[in-house]
Amino acid sequence: MMKLYGYWRSSAAYRVRIALNHKGLEAEQLSVHLVKDGGEQHKADYARLNPQELVPAFIDTDAEGNEDEFILSQSLAIIEYLDEKYPEVKLVPDSMYDRALVRSMAMSIACEVHPLNNLKVLQYLAKGLNLDDDAKSAWYHHWIHEGFAALEKQLIKYSGRYCFGDSVTLVDLCLVPQVYNANRFKVGLEAYPNIVRITQNCNQLDAFIDASPENQADAS
Amino acid sequence: MMKLYGYWRSSAAYRVRIALNHKGLEAEQLSVHLVKDGGEQHKADYARLNPQELVPAFIDTDAEGNEDEFILSQSLAIIEYLDEKYPEVKLVPDSMYDRALVRSMAMSIACEVHPLNNLKVLQYLAKGLNLDDDAKSAWYHHWIHEGFAALEKQLIKYSGRYCFGDSVTLVDLCLVPQVYNANRFKVGLEAYPNIVRITQNCNQLDAFIDASPENQADAS
Repeated sequence: MMKLYGYWRSSAAYRVRIALNHKGLEAEQLSVHLVKDGGEQHKADYARLNPQELVPAFIDTDAEGNEDEFILSQSLAIIEYLDEKYPEVKLVPDSMYDRALVRSMAMSIACEVHPLNNLKVLQYLAKGLNLDDDAKSAWYHHWIHEGFAALEKQLIKYSGRYCFGDSVTLVDLCLVPQVYNANRFKVGLEAYPNIVRITQNCNQLDAFIDASPENQADAS
Repeated sequence: MMKLYGYWRSSAAYRVRIALNHKGLEAEQLSVHLVKDGGEQHKADYARLNPQELVPAFIDTDAEGNEDEFILSQSLAIIEYLDEKYPEVKLVPDSMYDRALVRSMAMSIACEVHPLNNLKVLQYLAKGLNLDDDAKSAWYHHWIHEGFAALEKQLIKYSGRYCFGDSVTLVDLCLVPQVYNANRFKVGLEAYPNIVRITQNCNQLDAFIDASPENQADAS
């Protein structure tokens, strides 16, 4: 059986959980506590699995059929793998042009917004730079607003019921966890009606509801 | 003809330049000066093209055959598109398992290292947080070391002459520009013999040499 090492509040793990649910796939969920005791992701056993010491890490049978031997990190790489292995329900569209646009929009979150606002960066701001909560919050808000303003313009052009047309794609899997985090850090989203609308549409789907942080076994 | 909006020192544009060269493709290169007058990427004409106000932006004929109508941002999405449209020389391998690993390793740079050290972030550190050069340099070095230490472990497992086996892949296209920048910021790379070795191997290839910042028309 596939295994997913994650953490309830990890945006990147949240993306993969939605992908699994949306495709109707089962994976054993293993919790890596990102905060307790300095972070279980830094312990030797997990670091051997994923040298980046980040969640998620994903494990599957390898190309030769050996169980538990194919180890993958990076949420977007994991989701593209799932999309190729289980193509019945696609998260990256078939058309070469649409695929490219979906990847581009997904990466506008995954490469521009999320990396600046994840746990390790917020920890560096606090411990490495001694920033107070206001400065940390300003940092967080700055990158959300910059990223969401750009995405909102693309949604005007490309969105339907979801971020790219009327089917759930990789973009929605990146957007919803980022909005979840934006709400957690009290970022006002009034300027982004399409982002708010599409997030609401997604959050009516069981795949998204069941993947949400509060609905995970390790939520506290 | 394809068009690439870039800037000589942009790592992300550098990746796409290598891809074009390695595949033997021609694109019209248009320079967007990222620093002059507050940055040409923020001017209205360019922001219409790429609402993220970042380079690169890439333009091609669209699915209906209309010239200059297909606009794409995000270097990894552009490179995957080129790899699908011109598959004779592949940068993402054919095997589903290898593809996933290549994407994962590429994203370990593109989603974990580069986003923290690019121009807009360094500008925020200086202007938004009033960090001095030493603190900015410590920030830069921290994320390079963290990312390269993890990648070095993966290279021990997966590398050959290049990052993933003996063919140039998407990982090399991400690594070489990041090393270029690490050198620029005087990060010592002694701890990463595979990263240094592979970068040297890549930099013997015309595709990499011709794509290097100093060899661009807008270098100054």
